[in-house]
Amino acid sequence: MSEYPSILLEQAVNQMSSLPGVGRRTALRLVLHLLRQSDEQVEAFAGAFTRLKKEVVYCRECHNISDTEICPICASTRRDHATICVVENVQDVMSIENTGQYTGVYHVLGGVISPMEGIGPKDIEIDSLIERIAKENIDEIILALPTTMEGDTTNFYIYRRIQNAGIDVKISQIARGVAVGNQLEYTDEITLGRSIVNRTEFKG
Amino acid sequence: MSEYPSILLEQAVNQMSSLPGVGRRTALRLVLHLLRQSDEQVEAFAGAFTRLKKEVVYCRECHNISDTEICPICASTRRDHATICVVENVQDVMSIENTGQYTGVYHVLGGVISPMEGIGPKDIEIDSLIERIAKENIDEIILALPTTMEGDTTNFYIYRRIQNAGIDVKISQIARGVAVGNQLEYTDEITLGRSIVNRTEFKG
Repeated sequence: MSEYPSILLEQAVNQMSSLPGVGRRTALRLVLHLLRQSDEQVEAFAGAFTRLKKEVVYCRECHNISDTEICPICASTRRDHATICVVENVQDVMSIENTGQYTGVYHVLGGVISPMEGIGPKDIEIDSLIERIAKENIDEIILALPTTMEGDTTNFYIYRRIQNAGIDVKISQIARGVAVGNQLEYTDEITLGRSIVNRTEFKG
Repeated sequence: MSEYPSILLEQAVNQMSSLPGVGRRTALRLVLHLLRQSDEQVEAFAGAFTRLKKEVVYCRECHNISDTEICPICASTRRDHATICVVENVQDVMSIENTGQYTGVYHVLGGVISPMEGIGPKDIEIDSLIERIAKENIDEIILALPTTMEGDTTNFYIYRRIQNAGIDVKISQIARGVAVGNQLEYTDEITLGRSIVNRTEFKG
């Protein structure tokens, strides 16, 4: 006999524990919490994820998650559209926005190059970045990828692609105030803010 | 402007962080993990909770979560149906089953009496317990509720209800004492005091 008194319960626990960092005991506790909520609340809980997955839009310019074809940052006339900050993911945009130190726009790669995980340059938004730089009048590209080997590899790849395309643009990277090996989303705002202000030229 | 680049994303984060112990940053990480899964996987995730909520059955006898009108434990002819272990919730049934030490059946109250939280005797499965004891041929009731003030109150209330109904049944409670493997100096004084008063014969 299964450890669980109900297959439906077991399936819900399986799904909950498929989330990263959620063990089976925690998953059971969370599922039983949900089960104590009203039908409407459980519908709202489940519906939020399917609706997000179905209806989510990625900004045509920066590829950030958005509700509109052009995200509010890319659509804003108060932002400096000649400066593009290249980040790995959505959390990084939110983290940099929270510092209040950055007035340019973003480009969300959706990952970094990682041969170990089988993620190559074609799997992330690099082509669209190069296209964007070639097409628009860009002064500066700020590389704000994680200070990991994968981040460094991606920085260098982007640098080479811009060089090879013969585009004249200043390329900088965020200051190494961010501890090596750390993810941007876990860096405190002061360090992260300074690392943007004190960005240095990327020399490849 | 909202902290989140998308209202759909924010709503999903709101729902995820409504789970107990899940903060907003963790919720965002979990939601973005879900967003990287396939449509089918997100449907399966969300569907597991709505299906559980819609289709869950509570055993007519013991009120445990079940897929059938009578749960496998209550339906088993190999269990001792004259011994009922009274527990607060589903997890407690699973915990006791995991010990492999119990062969009787259960009664799941679905909570304990808590005036602070506005939970009275009518809000949990006490009437059905008394009815069950009066109707069936029960030898022993084992009270296995949490060793908290609410658990003690509920134990006492059940005891009085059985007395008042004039039912002749042995009523016991799980042993309270120093947990196996624990040092005496780290055991709280109430537990240690009771474990001395309620000492048992050493049989070597």
